[in-house]
Amino acid sequence: MKENRQPLPDSLEILPDWLSPKPMVVQHTLSVPPPRLEDNTADVDRLVRALRRDGFFPVRVDPWDLDPISQELRRGGFTVTVVVGYQEDHWEILELTAGTSRDPVLGVAVDLGSSRLAFYLLDLEKGIVIDRRSEPNPQIPYGEDILTRIVYASDPDKRRRLQELLLSAFRDVVARMAAHKGLETSRIFALTVAGNTTMSHFFLGLNTANICKEPYIPVANRFPFLRGRDLALPMHPKGLVFVFPNVGSYFGGDLMAGILASGMHRREELSLLVDVGTNAEVVLGNKDWLIACAGAAGPALEGGVVERGMMAGPGAIDWVRIDPHTLDVQYRVIGQEKPKGLCGSGLIDLVAEMFMAGILTIRGTLNRNLPCARIVDTDNGPGFVVAWGAETADGRDLVVSEIDIGILLKSKAAMYTILNIIARKVGVSLQEIHKFYVAGTFGNHIDPVMAIRIGMLPDLPLDTYEGLGNTAGRGAAMVLVDRTLLKDLEQVRNQITYVELNVNVELMHEFRGATFLPHTDPGLFPSVPIPDRAKEGL
Amino acid sequence: MKENRQPLPDSLEILPDWLSPKPMVVQHTLSVPPPRLEDNTADVDRLVRALRRDGFFPVRVDPWDLDPISQELRRGGFTVTVVVGYQEDHWEILELTAGTSRDPVLGVAVDLGSSRLAFYLLDLEKGIVIDRRSEPNPQIPYGEDILTRIVYASDPDKRRRLQELLLSAFRDVVARMAAHKGLETSRIFALTVAGNTTMSHFFLGLNTANICKEPYIPVANRFPFLRGRDLALPMHPKGLVFVFPNVGSYFGGDLMAGILASGMHRREELSLLVDVGTNAEVVLGNKDWLIACAGAAGPALEGGVVERGMMAGPGAIDWVRIDPHTLDVQYRVIGQEKPKGLCGSGLIDLVAEMFMAGILTIRGTLNRNLPCARIVDTDNGPGFVVAWGAETADGRDLVVSEIDIGILLKSKAAMYTILNIIARKVGVSLQEIHKFYVAGTFGNHIDPVMAIRIGMLPDLPLDTYEGLGNTAGRGAAMVLVDRTLLKDLEQVRNQITYVELNVNVELMHEFRGATFLPHTDPGLFPSVPIPDRAKEGL
Repeated sequence: MKENRQPLPDSLEILPDWLSPKPMVVQHTLSVPPPRLEDNTADVDRLVRALRRDGFFPVRVDPWDLDPISQELRRGGFTVTVVVGYQEDHWEILELTAGTSRDPVLGVAVDLGSSRLAFYLLDLEKGIVIDRRSEPNPQIPYGEDILTRIVYASDPDKRRRLQELLLSAFRDVVARMAAHKGLETSRIFALTVAGNTTMSHFFLGLNTANICKEPYIPVANRFPFLRGRDLALPMHPKGLVFVFPNVGSYFGGDLMAGILASGMHRREELSLLVDVGTNAEVVLGNKDWLIACAGAAGPALEGGVVERGMMAGPGAIDWVRIDPHTLDVQYRVIGQEKPKGLCGSGLIDLVAEMFMAGILTIRGTLNRNLPCARIVDTDNGPGFVVAWGAETADGRDLVVSEIDIGILLKSKAAMYTILNIIARKVGVSLQEIHKFYVAGTFGNHIDPVMAIRIGMLPDLPLDTYEGLGNTAGRGAAMVLVDRTLLKDLEQVRNQITYVELNVNVELMHEFRGATFLPHTDPGLFPSVPIPDRAKEGL
Repeated sequence: MKENRQPLPDSLEILPDWLSPKPMVVQHTLSVPPPRLEDNTADVDRLVRALRRDGFFPVRVDPWDLDPISQELRRGGFTVTVVVGYQEDHWEILELTAGTSRDPVLGVAVDLGSSRLAFYLLDLEKGIVIDRRSEPNPQIPYGEDILTRIVYASDPDKRRRLQELLLSAFRDVVARMAAHKGLETSRIFALTVAGNTTMSHFFLGLNTANICKEPYIPVANRFPFLRGRDLALPMHPKGLVFVFPNVGSYFGGDLMAGILASGMHRREELSLLVDVGTNAEVVLGNKDWLIACAGAAGPALEGGVVERGMMAGPGAIDWVRIDPHTLDVQYRVIGQEKPKGLCGSGLIDLVAEMFMAGILTIRGTLNRNLPCARIVDTDNGPGFVVAWGAETADGRDLVVSEIDIGILLKSKAAMYTILNIIARKVGVSLQEIHKFYVAGTFGNHIDPVMAIRIGMLPDLPLDTYEGLGNTAGRGAAMVLVDRTLLKDLEQVRNQITYVELNVNVELMHEFRGATFLPHTDPGLFPSVPIPDRAKEGL
């Protein structure tokens, strides 16, 4: 019994409605008063003065543009179209043409993930995303995990190779997106990149050696604006390249973009943002303060560690229901395919449903007293058949073992513990959280009811939870259409406190309690009905 | 009878004592706290934070410097020496080396004159000029006057040639100065250039075509900072090149530098600055307002038009006295040479003394009633023998004709008229002027007593007058050792009102009166005793 489902459509509507329509690059046609004896300011100064009148101040001019500006001004009878780019404390003239121009002004936002790169092409005048692409990170052959890549990059030539791999992918994908839309890459005047600290360093060809050894120091947290020509990117040669700043080695630009995407830093009410990647990264706070920490919690949740786990994608079971009476299993597979494994949300659903049906005890062990053909013995010990061989892609039974479940429970316990610790650090209760954002693909697929049932997420009203999808790409795109967010980034960077999690006795005790279903203290999860069968054998 | 005198020594002490010791480029050694787990800011941000603590804020970092900064920081055990350059609204790291460095920090100031270039080499840490050179402007073969050069430069290739001539001279002279002092040109971190609007355009290779035709519009009044490498100058490749801004086509960076040199823009009291070049340029005002105008007055005063006139230099008579009883002439020649001609101050002395001795009437004609062998007839009409052939370099009598004197009187009348017009424009009397600065070589040589006697300068107390020498070079040097003057320049540019002189009846009437000695209204010059003989024949 299964229900096939299309993967989530790759929506282009990723921009929240609270953005100010103040793009990072603006095309502006203006008529400058022609010079007279009584008003004989120089050509360039005349343009700068007119731009100031129209709100662009201060404007910087490249020394090599002085003559061309004068020429175009006069060619256009003192009516010109300028494209000006914003860089936090000033504007710069990126292009100037005589007369009126209605050519589009484009931008590209990039989520620079360690496993995938996601590209968004935006029309900055309309403030909309017009195309998106996603590619595997071309560095993967040089290290599945980022630490391997850092070791590889200790040689400067190899570091340059890792950078060149990224740049080639950028060149290729950006050019393809523009061609697909019939647009000139020379109309791309800005490119924003949000990645974790190491990926941002790789992108800029910076030394990563000190990121991974105590005291974990990046070369830079803030990166100066670069130009398209600096990296030979298929965009306007003077186009702005902005790499999101990081807070430190373990708090990168991707998470900064995530904060922007949530908007939590602008709200009075308390919000919490969780990004589940290799680490679970957590940010708690509001417009006045922000606290962050990270901890190993992720792999099982992303479906990457358990035996039949997989990333959310075609063939992944992402939804499971179990009839508590018949113990019959219903599942849903991404894409029109037979199931190959379970992604994070599928695994969470499975464990929650097994627990609710009494197949799993509160300790996370299989209830062998139950008359259930799906409980089987495997080479890895007892397991549960989610799908019989007749239904699966490889013809083998899709079994999740007690060991796999144990891994998931450790992950969810780590997550819950981190959430409690960070809340306690600032003396708030998780109950006070007004909005709980879950970033990443994981956040779009997860069912908070199920996550609460297994005790991974706190027992909050369901409308508190909101999946944000690719927050790095979203934040990167948002900065393109609302430059005021550049100031937000600085403010967030200054406000945020990053807390190191120290492993101590208290933490271990708390963690152990959280490995239970839903917790050794069920009072923390009043909404979760614990079936009697799950208490059997205790 | 003559008295030889050395030319004025090329003094290195051109900097006024009121400057703040705040050089445009600063070398600063600092120890940055090494990173710890509790203080794990990135390397570059750590340096920027420490620089901010030490008063350098905001600091901009070149993207390609991120890795080198991190490397040098660590190589020096977190003690580094930075050289930071100031650019009005921010600092930039120009050089960074591990450990402590006491290498000198040098700057070069240039007076970019249309006939001569003057170079000053400065030690920016000591705030002193250590060498100076002067060269003829290498563009002279392409046009003695600037208009000819503008016509020549209408072809872009020729414009580039004119630029390259200047740059070659810069490269040559700067390299020679550094070598002479045993210093590396790579230690030159700033170069400032003060020239008139056209010369500044030539230096930057900008189009000058619109400067000389109505409504007289330069390409730019403000020039962005350039780098040494942009112009292949023998200095640090990232060293700052600052070209003084101009107010308009007829009010250039040289005069802006002159205002700085006078300090008039910072004082409560009223000052007047006169720069006598091809035009007489006049600035009147104080810390609250400034008004400027220019008019053709100069050539005769610079000694360039009258027959035996010459620039102040070896062989030029720059001082003359005439015994009113014997009518004997005493003169002084620049350099250990026989006289070749008269420079501006010599000519003014001569006319003033001839007037005082009654050799000249108040109309400026020779008093032929006087029994004086020096009054002779020449092919150009009546003249006065300043030096007999036996004394001169070419063995010919050095004669100044009535026509020459007439040219001088027109020049001095123009000057006096301009001074009166500008004062009247703002409703002040010339008597209210607290300081009267005379710029240029002319200003160093002229004797105000004599200039008042011929009615060129107003009859003010003698201590009102002050010669400033090369104000363009001085102002350019001052900005190097006191960066706060960059803000002054902006303020002056915004404050100054440039007045066009319109030729009208009133002006012509006033001018005619001023061609007399000292004036048709002698009440304007109470200190000048008019000899009865000068009234003869009226």
